[in-house]
Amino acid sequence: MSGRTRIIINDVEYSADDAVVSAFDRGLQFGDGLFETMPVRDGNALLAEQHYERLKKGCLSLGIEMGSSFDAIGRAAARIQGGTATGVLKIIVTRGRSGRGYAFDGELSPTWMVSLSEYPNWPAAYAQQGVNVRVCKTPASRNCALAGIKHLNRLENVLARAELAADEQEGLLVDEFGHVIEGSMSNLFAVGDGVLVTPDLTHSGVCGIMRGVLLETAAGLSITTQVRQMPADELAHWDELFLCNSLIGVWPIKQIKHVEKYKKRTVTRKLQQAIREAKIFMVDV
Amino acid sequence: MSGRTRIIINDVEYSADDAVVSAFDRGLQFGDGLFETMPVRDGNALLAEQHYERLKKGCLSLGIEMGSSFDAIGRAAARIQGGTATGVLKIIVTRGRSGRGYAFDGELSPTWMVSLSEYPNWPAAYAQQGVNVRVCKTPASRNCALAGIKHLNRLENVLARAELAADEQEGLLVDEFGHVIEGSMSNLFAVGDGVLVTPDLTHSGVCGIMRGVLLETAAGLSITTQVRQMPADELAHWDELFLCNSLIGVWPIKQIKHVEKYKKRTVTRKLQQAIREAKIFMVDV
Repeated sequence: MSGRTRIIINDVEYSADDAVVSAFDRGLQFGDGLFETMPVRDGNALLAEQHYERLKKGCLSLGIEMGSSFDAIGRAAARIQGGTATGVLKIIVTRGRSGRGYAFDGELSPTWMVSLSEYPNWPAAYAQQGVNVRVCKTPASRNCALAGIKHLNRLENVLARAELAADEQEGLLVDEFGHVIEGSMSNLFAVGDGVLVTPDLTHSGVCGIMRGVLLETAAGLSITTQVRQMPADELAHWDELFLCNSLIGVWPIKQIKHVEKYKKRTVTRKLQQAIREAKIFMVDV
Repeated sequence: MSGRTRIIINDVEYSADDAVVSAFDRGLQFGDGLFETMPVRDGNALLAEQHYERLKKGCLSLGIEMGSSFDAIGRAAARIQGGTATGVLKIIVTRGRSGRGYAFDGELSPTWMVSLSEYPNWPAAYAQQGVNVRVCKTPASRNCALAGIKHLNRLENVLARAELAADEQEGLLVDEFGHVIEGSMSNLFAVGDGVLVTPDLTHSGVCGIMRGVLLETAAGLSITTQVRQMPADELAHWDELFLCNSLIGVWPIKQIKHVEKYKKRTVTRKLQQAIREAKIFMVDV
Protein backbone atom coordinates (compact mmCIF):
# COMPACT_ATOMS: atom_id res chain seq x y z
CA MET A 1 0.00 0.00 0.00
CA SER A 2 1.12 3.52 -0.63
CA GLY A 3 2.52 5.48 2.30
CA ARG A 4 -0.58 7.67 2.14
CA THR A 5 -2.82 4.83 3.25
CA ARG A 6 -4.18 5.29 6.77
CA ILE A 7 -5.58 2.41 8.78
CA ILE A 8 -7.30 1.91 12.13
CA ILE A 9 -7.35 -1.63 13.56
CA ASN A 10 -9.55 -2.24 16.61
CA ASP A 11 -9.44 1.46 17.53
CA VAL A 12 -5.68 1.93 17.11
CA GLU A 13 -4.36 3.97 14.17
CA TYR A 14 -1.29 2.74 12.32
CA SER A 15 0.78 3.85 9.37
CA ALA A 16 0.47 1.39 6.48
CA ASP A 17 3.91 -0.08 7.16
CA ASP A 18 3.22 -0.73 10.83
CA ALA A 19 -0.31 -2.11 10.47
CA VAL A 20 -0.38 -5.73 11.61
CA VAL A 21 -2.78 -8.40 12.81
CA SER A 22 -2.09 -11.59 14.74
CA ALA A 23 -0.76 -14.45 12.61
CA PHE A 24 -3.47 -16.54 14.31
CA ASP A 25 -6.29 -14.28 13.17
CA ARG A 26 -8.98 -16.39 11.53
CA GLY A 27 -9.15 -13.90 8.67
CA LEU A 28 -5.68 -15.04 7.66
CA GLN A 29 -6.00 -18.68 8.75
CA PHE A 30 -9.31 -19.41 6.98
CA GLY A 31 -10.59 -16.26 5.26
CA ASP A 32 -13.11 -16.21 8.10
CA GLY A 33 -14.49 -12.72 7.67
CA LEU A 34 -16.03 -10.06 5.44
CA PHE A 35 -15.17 -6.78 3.78
CA GLU A 36 -16.66 -3.67 2.21
CA THR A 37 -15.14 -1.12 -0.15
CA MET A 38 -16.67 2.27 -0.86
CA PRO A 39 -15.62 5.58 -2.38
CA VAL A 40 -15.09 8.68 -0.26
CA ARG A 41 -15.92 12.07 -1.72
CA ASP A 42 -15.52 15.35 0.18
CA GLY A 43 -15.15 13.42 3.42
CA ASN A 44 -18.28 11.31 2.93
CA ALA A 45 -18.38 7.61 2.17
CA LEU A 46 -20.91 7.13 -0.63
CA LEU A 47 -23.77 4.65 -0.15
CA ALA A 48 -22.28 3.98 3.30
CA GLU A 49 -25.62 2.95 4.78
CA GLN A 50 -26.06 0.17 2.22
CA HIS A 51 -22.49 -1.04 2.70
CA TYR A 52 -22.90 -1.23 6.49
CA GLU A 53 -26.20 -3.02 6.00
CA ARG A 54 -24.59 -5.69 3.82
CA LEU A 55 -21.73 -6.04 6.32
CA LYS A 56 -24.26 -6.65 9.09
CA LYS A 57 -26.09 -9.23 6.99
CA GLY A 58 -22.79 -10.95 6.26
CA CYS A 59 -21.94 -11.10 9.97
CA LEU A 60 -25.32 -12.70 10.59
CA SER A 61 -24.71 -15.28 7.83
CA LEU A 62 -21.31 -16.22 9.20
CA GLY A 63 -22.32 -15.97 12.86
CA ILE A 64 -19.77 -13.27 13.67
CA GLU A 65 -20.93 -11.43 16.77
CA MET A 66 -19.91 -7.82 16.52
CA GLY A 67 -21.33 -6.45 19.76
CA SER A 68 -20.48 -2.73 19.83
CA SER A 69 -17.87 -3.05 17.09
CA PHE A 70 -20.14 -1.60 14.39
CA ASP A 71 -20.31 1.67 16.32
CA ALA A 72 -16.53 1.65 16.72
CA ILE A 73 -16.12 1.01 12.98
CA GLY A 74 -18.43 3.92 12.20
CA ARG A 75 -16.43 6.25 14.46
CA ALA A 76 -13.12 5.05 12.98
CA ALA A 77 -14.44 5.60 9.45
CA ALA A 78 -15.61 9.11 10.31
CA ARG A 79 -12.21 9.91 11.80
CA ILE A 80 -10.20 8.52 8.89
CA GLN A 81 -12.30 9.93 6.04
CA GLY A 82 -12.97 13.34 7.58
CA GLY A 83 -11.99 16.21 5.29
CA THR A 84 -10.69 13.81 2.65
CA ALA A 85 -11.18 14.96 -0.93
CA THR A 86 -11.34 11.51 -2.48
CA GLY A 87 -10.32 8.03 -1.47
CA VAL A 88 -11.35 4.43 -0.99
CA LEU A 89 -12.62 3.30 2.39
CA LYS A 90 -12.17 -0.41 3.04
CA ILE A 91 -13.57 -2.18 6.07
CA ILE A 92 -12.50 -5.71 7.01
CA VAL A 93 -14.12 -7.71 9.80
CA THR A 94 -12.85 -11.13 10.91
CA ARG A 95 -14.05 -13.56 13.57
CA GLY A 96 -10.86 -12.77 15.51
CA ARG A 97 -7.99 -14.84 16.82
CA SER A 98 -8.43 -18.45 17.86
CA GLY A 99 -6.68 -21.80 18.15
CA ARG A 100 -5.63 -23.93 15.19
CA GLY A 101 -8.83 -25.76 14.15
CA TYR A 102 -11.97 -24.64 12.33
CA ALA A 103 -14.00 -24.67 15.57
CA PHE A 104 -14.65 -21.44 17.45
CA ASP A 105 -16.61 -20.47 20.52
CA GLY A 106 -18.76 -17.47 21.31
CA GLU A 107 -15.96 -15.85 23.32
CA LEU A 108 -14.00 -14.68 20.28
CA SER A 109 -13.51 -10.98 19.92
CA PRO A 110 -13.73 -9.87 16.28
CA THR A 111 -10.92 -8.05 14.53
CA TRP A 112 -11.90 -5.01 12.48
CA MET A 113 -9.95 -2.59 10.39
CA VAL A 114 -10.84 0.54 8.49
CA SER A 115 -8.40 1.85 5.91
CA LEU A 116 -8.38 4.79 3.54
CA SER A 117 -6.33 4.56 0.37
CA GLU A 118 -6.06 6.56 -2.82
CA TYR A 119 -8.89 6.49 -5.31
CA PRO A 120 -7.64 4.57 -8.40
CA ASN A 121 -6.68 6.68 -11.34
CA TRP A 122 -8.89 5.01 -13.97
CA PRO A 123 -8.95 6.76 -17.37
CA ALA A 124 -12.21 8.64 -17.99
CA ALA A 125 -12.43 6.69 -21.26
CA TYR A 126 -13.48 3.57 -19.34
CA ALA A 127 -16.76 5.18 -18.34
CA GLN A 128 -17.14 7.08 -21.61
CA GLN A 129 -16.01 4.80 -24.44
CA GLY A 130 -16.14 1.57 -22.46
CA VAL A 131 -13.78 -1.26 -21.55
CA ASN A 132 -12.40 -4.48 -23.02
CA VAL A 133 -13.47 -7.66 -21.32
CA ARG A 134 -12.45 -11.31 -21.41
CA VAL A 135 -14.40 -14.41 -20.42
CA CYS A 136 -12.17 -16.02 -17.78
CA LYS A 137 -11.25 -19.69 -17.54
CA THR A 138 -11.42 -19.51 -13.73
CA PRO A 139 -14.99 -20.60 -12.95
CA ALA A 140 -17.30 -18.90 -10.46
CA SER A 141 -17.68 -21.09 -7.34
CA ARG A 142 -21.13 -22.41 -6.57
CA ASN A 143 -22.15 -22.45 -2.89
CA CYS A 144 -25.54 -21.08 -1.87
CA ALA A 145 -24.36 -20.58 1.74
CA LEU A 146 -21.61 -18.20 0.62
CA ALA A 147 -23.16 -16.56 -2.45
CA GLY A 148 -24.18 -12.92 -2.20
CA ILE A 149 -22.15 -11.87 0.84
CA LYS A 150 -18.79 -10.15 0.49
CA HIS A 151 -16.64 -12.61 2.43
CA LEU A 152 -12.87 -12.92 2.48
CA ASN A 153 -12.69 -16.15 0.39
CA ARG A 154 -11.76 -14.38 -2.83
CA LEU A 155 -9.32 -16.70 -4.57
CA GLU A 156 -11.56 -17.07 -7.62
CA ASN A 157 -11.50 -13.29 -8.07
CA VAL A 158 -7.71 -13.20 -7.68
CA LEU A 159 -7.22 -15.97 -10.26
CA ALA A 160 -9.73 -14.45 -12.70
CA ARG A 161 -8.07 -11.05 -12.41
CA ALA A 162 -4.68 -12.64 -13.14
CA GLU A 163 -5.97 -13.88 -16.50
CA LEU A 164 -6.41 -10.39 -17.94
CA ALA A 165 -4.15 -9.12 -20.70
CA ALA A 166 -2.69 -5.62 -20.45
CA ASP A 167 -5.41 -4.19 -22.73
CA GLU A 168 -8.29 -5.81 -20.84
CA GLN A 169 -9.92 -4.04 -17.92
CA GLU A 170 -12.16 -6.78 -16.55
CA GLY A 171 -12.84 -10.50 -16.78
CA LEU A 172 -16.18 -12.29 -16.53
CA LEU A 173 -16.62 -15.37 -14.36
CA VAL A 174 -18.87 -18.14 -15.63
CA ASP A 175 -20.13 -21.03 -13.49
CA GLU A 176 -19.87 -24.69 -14.43
CA PHE A 177 -23.30 -24.57 -16.09
CA GLY A 178 -22.19 -21.82 -18.43
CA HIS A 179 -24.03 -19.00 -16.65
CA VAL A 180 -22.22 -15.67 -16.51
CA ILE A 181 -22.11 -14.60 -12.86
CA GLU A 182 -20.13 -11.37 -12.54
CA GLY A 183 -16.86 -9.61 -13.27
CA SER A 184 -13.80 -10.24 -11.09
CA MET A 185 -14.49 -6.97 -9.26
CA SER A 186 -17.86 -5.91 -10.65
CA ASN A 187 -21.41 -6.96 -11.42
CA LEU A 188 -22.70 -7.37 -14.96
CA PHE A 189 -25.79 -5.91 -16.60
CA ALA A 190 -27.16 -6.48 -20.08
CA VAL A 191 -29.85 -4.74 -22.09
CA GLY A 192 -31.95 -6.48 -24.73
CA ASP A 193 -35.14 -5.10 -26.30
CA GLY A 194 -35.08 -2.34 -23.69
CA VAL A 195 -35.12 -4.78 -20.74
CA LEU A 196 -32.31 -4.52 -18.17
CA VAL A 197 -31.03 -7.95 -17.09
CA THR A 198 -28.49 -8.96 -14.44
CA PRO A 199 -27.38 -12.47 -13.37
CA ASP A 200 -29.13 -14.35 -10.60
CA LEU A 201 -26.67 -14.65 -7.67
CA THR A 202 -28.38 -17.35 -5.61
CA HIS A 203 -25.48 -19.79 -6.01
CA SER A 204 -22.48 -17.63 -6.88
CA GLY A 205 -21.12 -14.11 -6.83
CA VAL A 206 -21.39 -11.01 -4.70
CA CYS A 207 -24.57 -8.91 -4.50
CA GLY A 208 -22.95 -5.56 -5.22
CA ILE A 209 -24.31 -2.40 -3.64
CA MET A 210 -24.17 -0.53 -6.96
CA ARG A 211 -26.02 -3.46 -8.57
CA GLY A 212 -28.85 -2.99 -6.08
CA VAL A 213 -28.87 0.78 -6.60
CA LEU A 214 -29.02 0.40 -10.38
CA LEU A 215 -31.90 -2.10 -10.22
CA GLU A 216 -33.80 0.40 -8.08
CA THR A 217 -32.81 3.35 -10.23
CA ALA A 218 -33.90 1.55 -13.39
CA ALA A 219 -37.26 0.71 -11.86
CA GLY A 220 -37.65 4.40 -10.98
CA LEU A 221 -36.98 5.25 -14.64
CA SER A 222 -39.65 2.71 -15.72
CA ILE A 223 -37.04 0.45 -17.29
CA THR A 224 -38.14 -3.18 -17.01
CA THR A 225 -35.62 -5.21 -14.98
CA GLN A 226 -34.99 -8.94 -14.74
CA VAL A 227 -32.74 -10.96 -12.43
CA ARG A 228 -32.15 -14.29 -14.12
CA GLN A 229 -29.63 -16.79 -15.44
CA MET A 230 -27.50 -15.41 -18.27
CA PRO A 231 -25.91 -18.05 -20.52
CA ALA A 232 -22.38 -17.07 -21.51
CA ASP A 233 -22.93 -18.23 -25.08
CA GLU A 234 -25.64 -15.59 -25.51
CA LEU A 235 -23.36 -12.68 -24.55
CA ALA A 236 -23.01 -11.61 -28.19
CA HIS A 237 -26.78 -11.17 -28.58
CA TRP A 238 -27.31 -8.27 -26.17
CA ASP A 239 -27.76 -4.68 -27.33
CA GLU A 240 -25.82 -3.22 -24.42
CA LEU A 241 -23.56 -4.64 -21.74
CA PHE A 242 -22.07 -2.83 -18.77
CA LEU A 243 -20.20 -3.45 -15.52
CA CYS A 244 -20.74 -1.71 -12.21
CA ASN A 245 -19.45 -1.43 -8.70
CA SER A 246 -19.30 1.26 -6.03
CA LEU A 247 -15.86 2.44 -7.13
CA ILE A 248 -16.13 2.34 -10.92
CA GLY A 249 -19.78 3.35 -11.16
CA VAL A 250 -20.90 2.15 -14.59
CA TRP A 251 -18.46 1.07 -17.31
CA PRO A 252 -19.95 0.16 -20.69
CA ILE A 253 -18.43 -2.97 -22.22
CA LYS A 254 -16.93 -2.11 -25.59
CA GLN A 255 -15.68 -5.49 -26.66
CA ILE A 256 -15.36 -9.05 -25.43
CA LYS A 257 -12.32 -11.05 -26.49
CA HIS A 258 -11.37 -8.37 -29.02
CA VAL A 259 -14.72 -8.51 -30.81
CA GLU A 260 -15.99 -4.96 -30.96
CA LYS A 261 -19.75 -4.98 -30.46
CA TYR A 262 -22.13 -3.28 -27.99
CA LYS A 263 -22.27 0.17 -29.64
CA LYS A 264 -25.71 0.96 -28.32
CA ARG A 265 -25.60 2.81 -25.00
CA THR A 266 -29.14 4.07 -24.45
CA VAL A 267 -29.92 2.47 -21.09
CA THR A 268 -26.28 2.53 -19.97
CA ARG A 269 -26.12 6.32 -20.44
CA LYS A 270 -29.43 6.85 -18.64
CA LEU A 271 -28.15 4.97 -15.61
CA GLN A 272 -24.79 6.74 -15.65
CA GLN A 273 -26.63 10.06 -15.67
CA ALA A 274 -28.93 8.95 -12.86
CA ILE A 275 -26.14 7.96 -10.44
CA ARG A 276 -24.26 11.14 -11.30
CA GLU A 277 -27.31 13.27 -10.50
CA ALA A 278 -28.03 11.34 -7.31
CA LYS A 279 -24.43 12.04 -6.22
CA ILE A 280 -23.96 8.44 -5.20
CA PHE A 281 -20.95 8.02 -7.38
CA MET A 282 -17.50 9.46 -7.52
CA VAL A 283 -16.66 10.89 -10.89
CA ASP A 284 -18.73 13.29 -12.91
CA VAL A 285 -18.66 11.55 -16.26
CA MET B 1 -3.19 -20.25 20.60
CA SER B 2 -1.63 -21.61 23.73
CA GLY B 3 1.51 -19.97 25.03
CA ARG B 4 3.41 -23.14 24.10
CA THR B 5 2.89 -22.47 20.39
CA ARG B 6 6.08 -21.46 18.60
CA ILE B 7 6.05 -19.74 15.24
CA ILE B 8 8.57 -18.59 12.65
CA ILE B 9 7.42 -16.02 10.09
CA ASN B 10 9.73 -15.29 7.15
CA ASP B 11 12.75 -16.51 9.16
CA VAL B 12 11.95 -14.61 12.36
CA GLU B 13 10.79 -16.53 15.44
CA TYR B 14 7.99 -15.06 17.57
CA SER B 15 6.08 -16.06 20.65
CA ALA B 16 2.43 -16.76 19.84
CA ASP B 17 1.30 -13.45 21.32
CA ASP B 18 3.77 -11.39 19.32
CA ALA B 19 3.35 -13.17 15.97
CA VAL B 20 1.93 -10.74 13.42
CA VAL B 21 1.60 -10.23 9.69
CA SER B 22 0.88 -7.07 7.72
CA ALA B 23 -2.78 -6.09 7.66
CA PHE B 24 -2.29 -5.76 3.89
CA ASP B 25 -1.12 -9.34 3.47
CA ARG B 26 -3.16 -10.99 0.70
CA GLY B 27 -3.67 -14.02 2.91
CA LEU B 28 -5.86 -11.85 5.13
CA GLN B 29 -7.28 -9.62 2.40
CA PHE B 30 -8.39 -12.42 0.03
CA GLY B 31 -7.42 -15.81 1.47
CA ASP B 32 -4.74 -15.73 -1.24
CA GLY B 33 -2.56 -18.58 -0.06
CA LEU B 34 -2.22 -22.20 1.05
CA PHE B 35 -1.55 -24.25 4.15
CA GLU B 36 -0.43 -27.68 5.35
CA THR B 37 -0.89 -29.36 8.71
CA MET B 38 1.04 -32.45 9.80
CA PRO B 39 1.80 -34.29 13.01
CA VAL B 40 5.24 -34.23 14.61
CA ARG B 41 6.46 -37.30 16.46
CA ASP B 42 9.87 -37.53 18.12
CA GLY B 43 11.01 -34.43 16.27
CA ASN B 44 9.94 -35.68 12.83
CA ALA B 45 7.03 -34.33 10.78
CA LEU B 46 5.17 -37.37 9.46
CA LEU B 47 4.55 -37.66 5.71
CA ALA B 48 6.38 -34.35 5.37
CA GLU B 49 7.52 -35.06 1.82
CA GLN B 50 3.93 -35.52 0.62
CA HIS B 51 2.79 -32.36 2.41
CA TYR B 52 5.57 -30.28 0.85
CA GLU B 53 4.76 -31.78 -2.53
CA ARG B 54 1.09 -30.74 -2.25
CA LEU B 55 2.16 -27.26 -1.09
CA LYS B 56 4.35 -26.91 -4.17
CA LYS B 57 1.51 -28.05 -6.44
CA GLY B 58 -0.80 -25.55 -4.77
CA CYS B 59 1.70 -22.74 -5.35
CA LEU B 60 1.85 -23.71 -9.03
CA SER B 61 -1.98 -23.70 -9.26
CA LEU B 62 -2.25 -20.26 -7.69
CA GLY B 63 0.85 -18.85 -9.39
CA ILE B 64 2.63 -18.09 -6.13
CA GLU B 65 6.36 -17.87 -6.85
CA MET B 66 8.25 -19.15 -3.85
CA GLY B 67 11.84 -18.81 -5.10
CA SER B 68 14.07 -20.06 -2.28
CA SER B 69 11.28 -19.88 0.32
CA PHE B 70 10.66 -23.64 0.29
CA ASP B 71 14.21 -24.21 1.53
CA ALA B 72 13.73 -21.58 4.22
CA ILE B 73 10.46 -23.22 5.28
CA GLY B 74 12.19 -26.59 5.54
CA ARG B 75 14.93 -25.11 7.72
CA ALA B 76 12.40 -23.32 9.92
CA ALA B 77 10.38 -26.51 10.33
CA ALA B 78 13.49 -28.48 11.29
CA ARG B 79 14.40 -25.82 13.84
CA ILE B 80 10.95 -25.61 15.39
CA GLN B 81 10.14 -29.32 15.52
CA GLY B 82 13.59 -30.51 16.59
CA GLY B 83 13.49 -32.66 19.71
CA THR B 84 9.72 -32.24 20.05
CA ALA B 85 7.90 -35.25 21.46
CA THR B 86 4.58 -34.58 19.76
CA GLY B 87 2.95 -31.60 18.14
CA VAL B 88 1.22 -30.20 15.09
CA LEU B 89 3.28 -28.44 12.46
CA LYS B 90 1.33 -25.95 10.37
CA ILE B 91 2.75 -24.14 7.37
CA ILE B 92 0.99 -21.18 5.78
CA VAL B 93 2.12 -19.54 2.56
CA THR B 94 0.52 -16.40 1.12
CA ARG B 95 1.21 -14.37 -2.01
CA GLY B 96 2.49 -11.59 0.25
CA ARG B 97 1.58 -7.98 0.77
CA SER B 98 0.14 -5.84 -2.01
CA GLY B 99 -2.12 -2.92 -2.81
CA ARG B 100 -5.89 -2.95 -2.41
CA GLY B 101 -7.18 -4.71 -5.54
CA TYR B 102 -7.18 -8.33 -6.67
CA ALA B 103 -4.37 -7.67 -9.17
CA PHE B 104 -0.79 -8.55 -8.31
CA ASP B 105 2.52 -8.45 -10.11
CA GLY B 106 5.47 -10.83 -10.18
CA GLU B 107 7.40 -8.64 -7.75
CA LEU B 108 5.49 -9.80 -4.66
CA SER B 109 7.47 -11.52 -2.00
CA PRO B 110 5.50 -14.39 -0.40
CA THR B 111 4.77 -14.54 3.31
CA TRP B 112 5.39 -17.88 4.99
CA MET B 113 4.95 -19.07 8.53
CA VAL B 114 5.71 -22.31 10.30
CA SER B 115 4.13 -22.95 13.67
CA LEU B 116 4.22 -25.80 16.15
CA SER B 117 1.30 -26.27 18.51
CA GLU B 118 0.13 -28.99 20.86
CA TYR B 119 -1.19 -32.23 19.43
CA PRO B 120 -4.95 -32.32 20.16
CA ASN B 121 -6.00 -34.50 23.03
CA TRP B 122 -8.56 -36.66 21.19
CA PRO B 123 -9.97 -39.57 23.19
CA ALA B 124 -8.57 -42.94 22.06
CA ALA B 125 -12.20 -44.06 21.72
CA TYR B 126 -12.54 -42.03 18.52
CA ALA B 127 -10.10 -44.33 16.71
CA GLN B 128 -11.26 -47.45 18.55
CA GLN B 129 -15.04 -47.28 18.89
CA GLY B 130 -15.58 -44.58 16.26
CA VAL B 131 -17.19 -41.15 16.08
CA ASN B 132 -20.61 -39.57 15.64
CA VAL B 133 -21.13 -37.65 12.45
CA ARG B 134 -23.72 -35.27 11.05
CA VAL B 135 -24.56 -34.39 7.46
CA CYS B 136 -24.10 -30.61 7.37
CA LYS B 137 -26.42 -28.07 5.80
CA THR B 138 -23.45 -26.00 4.64
CA PRO B 139 -22.83 -27.25 1.10
CA ALA B 140 -19.43 -28.07 -0.37
CA SER B 141 -18.41 -25.40 -2.89
CA ARG B 142 -17.96 -26.47 -6.48
CA ASN B 143 -15.04 -24.92 -8.36
CA CYS B 144 -12.72 -27.13 -10.40
CA ALA B 145 -9.95 -24.48 -10.31
CA LEU B 146 -9.85 -24.57 -6.50
CA ALA B 147 -10.77 -28.20 -5.75
CA GLY B 148 -8.07 -30.49 -4.40
CA ILE B 149 -5.56 -27.91 -3.20
CA LYS B 150 -5.41 -26.84 0.44
CA HIS B 151 -5.95 -23.12 -0.02
CA LEU B 152 -6.89 -20.54 2.58
CA ASN B 153 -10.52 -20.09 1.42
CA ARG B 154 -11.99 -22.28 4.14
CA LEU B 155 -15.27 -20.62 5.10
CA GLU B 156 -17.32 -23.68 4.14
CA ASN B 157 -15.26 -25.77 6.57
CA VAL B 158 -15.71 -23.18 9.33
CA LEU B 159 -19.48 -23.04 8.82
CA ALA B 160 -19.82 -26.82 8.59
CA ARG B 161 -17.78 -27.29 11.79
CA ALA B 162 -20.03 -24.78 13.57
CA GLU B 163 -23.07 -26.99 12.88
CA LEU B 164 -21.81 -29.84 15.07
CA ALA B 165 -23.53 -30.66 18.34
CA ALA B 166 -21.41 -31.34 21.43
CA ASP B 167 -21.65 -35.11 20.93
CA GLU B 168 -20.68 -35.00 17.26
CA GLN B 169 -17.04 -35.17 16.22
CA GLU B 170 -17.30 -34.43 12.51
CA GLY B 171 -19.71 -33.17 9.86
CA LEU B 172 -19.96 -34.25 6.23
CA LEU B 173 -20.22 -31.72 3.43
CA VAL B 174 -22.46 -32.53 0.47
CA ASP B 175 -22.44 -30.63 -2.82
CA GLU B 176 -25.53 -29.22 -4.52
CA PHE B 177 -25.99 -32.43 -6.51
CA GLY B 178 -26.22 -34.50 -3.34
CA HIS B 179 -22.70 -35.98 -3.57
CA VAL B 180 -20.86 -36.39 -0.30
CA ILE B 181 -17.48 -34.70 -0.67
CA GLU B 182 -15.60 -34.82 2.63
CA GLY B 183 -15.69 -34.06 6.34
CA SER B 184 -15.11 -30.52 7.60
CA MET B 185 -11.51 -31.47 8.46
CA SER B 186 -11.19 -34.97 7.00
CA ASN B 187 -11.70 -37.15 3.96
CA LEU B 188 -14.34 -39.86 3.81
CA PHE B 189 -13.99 -43.52 2.87
CA ALA B 190 -16.68 -46.19 2.57
CA VAL B 191 -16.51 -49.95 2.19
CA GLY B 192 -19.16 -51.97 0.38
CA ASP B 193 -18.78 -55.61 -0.70
CA GLY B 194 -15.11 -55.38 0.19
CA VAL B 195 -14.45 -52.45 -2.17
CA LEU B 196 -12.94 -49.26 -0.70
CA VAL B 197 -14.57 -46.12 -2.11
CA THR B 198 -13.77 -42.45 -1.60
CA PRO B 199 -15.43 -39.38 -3.19
CA ASP B 200 -14.20 -37.91 -6.43
CA LEU B 201 -12.71 -34.46 -5.67
CA THR B 202 -12.55 -32.98 -9.16
CA HIS B 203 -14.98 -30.19 -8.34
CA SER B 204 -14.88 -29.86 -4.54
CA GLY B 205 -12.90 -30.72 -1.45
CA VAL B 206 -9.27 -31.14 -0.45
CA CYS B 207 -7.15 -34.08 -1.64
CA GLY B 208 -5.88 -35.13 1.77
CA ILE B 209 -2.41 -36.61 2.17
CA MET B 210 -3.73 -39.42 4.38
CA ARG B 211 -6.41 -40.11 1.74
CA GLY B 212 -3.67 -40.66 -0.84
CA VAL B 213 -1.67 -42.82 1.54
CA LEU B 214 -4.70 -44.98 2.32
CA LEU B 215 -5.56 -45.47 -1.33
CA GLU B 216 -2.00 -46.63 -1.93
CA THR B 217 -1.92 -48.75 1.21
CA ALA B 218 -5.19 -50.44 0.28
CA ALA B 219 -3.89 -51.24 -3.19
CA GLY B 220 -0.83 -52.79 -1.56
CA LEU B 221 -3.16 -54.92 0.55
CA SER B 222 -5.00 -56.04 -2.60
CA ILE B 223 -8.16 -54.20 -1.53
CA THR B 224 -10.03 -52.92 -4.60
CA THR B 225 -10.32 -49.12 -4.53
CA GLN B 226 -12.64 -46.73 -6.36
CA VAL B 227 -12.66 -42.95 -6.56
CA ARG B 228 -16.16 -41.94 -7.61
CA GLN B 229 -19.25 -39.91 -6.81
CA MET B 230 -20.92 -40.91 -3.54
CA PRO B 231 -24.60 -39.95 -3.25
CA ALA B 232 -25.43 -38.80 0.28
CA ASP B 233 -28.72 -40.68 0.23
CA GLU B 234 -26.80 -43.96 -0.09
CA LEU B 235 -24.72 -43.39 3.05
CA ALA B 236 -26.82 -45.87 5.05
CA HIS B 237 -26.04 -48.70 2.60
CA TRP B 238 -22.30 -49.03 3.22
CA ASP B 239 -20.78 -51.78 5.37
CA GLU B 240 -18.09 -49.53 6.82
CA LEU B 241 -17.47 -45.80 6.84
CA PHE B 242 -14.43 -43.98 8.14
CA LEU B 243 -12.77 -40.58 8.19
CA CYS B 244 -9.09 -39.80 7.83
CA ASN B 245 -6.55 -37.01 7.88
CA SER B 246 -2.90 -36.65 8.79
CA LEU B 247 -3.68 -35.72 12.39
CA ILE B 248 -6.52 -38.10 13.29
CA GLY B 249 -5.28 -41.06 11.22
CA VAL B 250 -8.39 -43.20 10.71
CA TRP B 251 -11.58 -42.74 12.71
CA PRO B 252 -14.38 -45.27 12.08
CA ILE B 253 -17.81 -43.66 11.80
CA LYS B 254 -20.09 -45.13 14.46
CA GLN B 255 -23.30 -43.33 13.69
CA ILE B 256 -24.69 -40.63 11.44
CA LYS B 257 -27.39 -38.34 12.81
CA HIS B 258 -27.77 -40.53 15.90
CA VAL B 259 -28.49 -43.67 13.86
CA GLU B 260 -26.08 -46.34 15.06
CA LYS B 261 -25.00 -48.43 12.09
CA TYR B 262 -21.54 -49.27 10.64
CA LYS B 263 -20.56 -52.03 13.04
CA LYS B 264 -18.36 -53.84 10.56
CA ARG B 265 -14.75 -52.70 10.75
CA THR B 266 -12.80 -55.25 8.67
CA VAL B 267 -11.15 -52.95 6.12
CA THR B 268 -11.05 -50.02 8.54
CA ARG B 269 -9.00 -52.04 11.05
CA LYS B 270 -6.66 -53.34 8.35
CA LEU B 271 -5.85 -49.80 7.27
CA GLN B 272 -5.46 -48.57 10.85
CA GLN B 273 -2.99 -51.36 11.44
CA ALA B 274 -1.12 -50.60 8.22
CA ILE B 275 -0.53 -46.91 9.00
CA ARG B 276 0.47 -47.83 12.56
CA GLU B 277 3.04 -50.30 11.30
CA ALA B 278 4.34 -47.91 8.66
CA LYS B 279 4.87 -45.33 11.44
CA ILE B 280 3.21 -42.64 9.33
CA PHE B 281 0.71 -41.83 11.99
CA MET B 282 0.82 -40.44 15.46
CA VAL B 283 -0.98 -42.59 17.95
CA ASP B 284 -0.49 -46.30 18.45
CA VAL B 285 -4.12 -47.41 18.47
